[in-house]
Amino acid sequence: MEKPAQVEYPVHELIGRRWSPVAFSGRPLTGSDIASLFEAARWAPSSFNEQPWRFIVAARDDPEEFARMLSCLSPGNQAWVRHAPLVILTFAKLAFDRNGKPNRHALHDVGLAAENLVLQAMSMGLFAHQMAGFDSAKVVETYGVPGGFEPVTAIAVGYPGDADSLPEDLRRRQHSKRARVSLGSLVFTKVWGEPPDFLGA
Amino acid sequence: MEKPAQVEYPVHELIGRRWSPVAFSGRPLTGSDIASLFEAARWAPSSFNEQPWRFIVAARDDPEEFARMLSCLSPGNQAWVRHAPLVILTFAKLAFDRNGKPNRHALHDVGLAAENLVLQAMSMGLFAHQMAGFDSAKVVETYGVPGGFEPVTAIAVGYPGDADSLPEDLRRRQHSKRARVSLGSLVFTKVWGEPPDFLGA
Repeated sequence: MEKPAQVEYPVHELIGRRWSPVAFSGRPLTGSDIASLFEAARWAPSSFNEQPWRFIVAARDDPEEFARMLSCLSPGNQAWVRHAPLVILTFAKLAFDRNGKPNRHALHDVGLAAENLVLQAMSMGLFAHQMAGFDSAKVVETYGVPGGFEPVTAIAVGYPGDADSLPEDLRRRQHSKRARVSLGSLVFTKVWGEPPDFLGA
Repeated sequence: MEKPAQVEYPVHELIGRRWSPVAFSGRPLTGSDIASLFEAARWAPSSFNEQPWRFIVAARDDPEEFARMLSCLSPGNQAWVRHAPLVILTFAKLAFDRNGKPNRHALHDVGLAAENLVLQAMSMGLFAHQMAGFDSAKVVETYGVPGGFEPVTAIAVGYPGDADSLPEDLRRRQHSKRARVSLGSLVFTKVWGEPPDFLGA
């Protein structure tokens, strides 16, 4: 199922086709497919090349590990993520390796890496759905996350699936319209709130 | 000049070719090129579809505005950014529109949007270089940034240029080797610190 971005200006196909489905096929990913996702994340840019991202991964074909991972997610997310072949947790290292000072860009840079991962997935025929709905304390306890690292998101990854077997509320989510605010309310020039001329042109 | 990522596993060409040069050509961008960069950012995913990103833009072909923008950057960054045709500031909205509560993912989600912008640039033959080195307080004052929004990064965008005319230290930066830590020190399974089998396979 496709839900292309309703763009006013052309964007690259991977960016325009990206969306966050709730219906995934159970088709497993190969190990080297999974490795490519993290390779894409690894080569993201970061402040002082700090690379403040870490990842924990569980595949559905390891039922015990997958169940541990699922148990960290909110019940609402478990309902659809349990069909996905792969779940990833992302983490931020909050202080700089170089001097121990707080890295104000740690979460931002995890975002840069995560979007690389998401678009790499798209390029392989996969879709990714990022979530904030999980139990951070439970993640820290379950996986022995050391101090100084903060859980950031969970990401479900898999081939697109069929929403017909999902409960009504999830079917509705799968088919809901994608919405974004206008470019003119996001992009300014000269002073906050003033849209640049090229947006009206 | 190309500096492809030294990958162990294949990644999409836009991700593998992306890097952060300091040498830019003065060749200007068209208005619709610039609009496509922000269109790509606009369609990034975000927590509760909050879209917590905002942008301020200045082009080199408006010398007065460009000088105001440059004056907010660190002197080290001004030295090379002044040759780039476009500079962008990114901002995060720190609280949710929906309930006024702090959005823990605000900076993360700005990172998602920024990486869309960076990869969109790559797809258009442009390169982008993100920076943390700028004067946040001066940005807030210069552009009248309202409370609740935080400056996150500056991004220089342009066509690749020639490093020969740059000072020695910048030439060295342009040609320095790109480095990343190993995948096995970033990606874990079962417990923090344990690399998954597929990375060794």
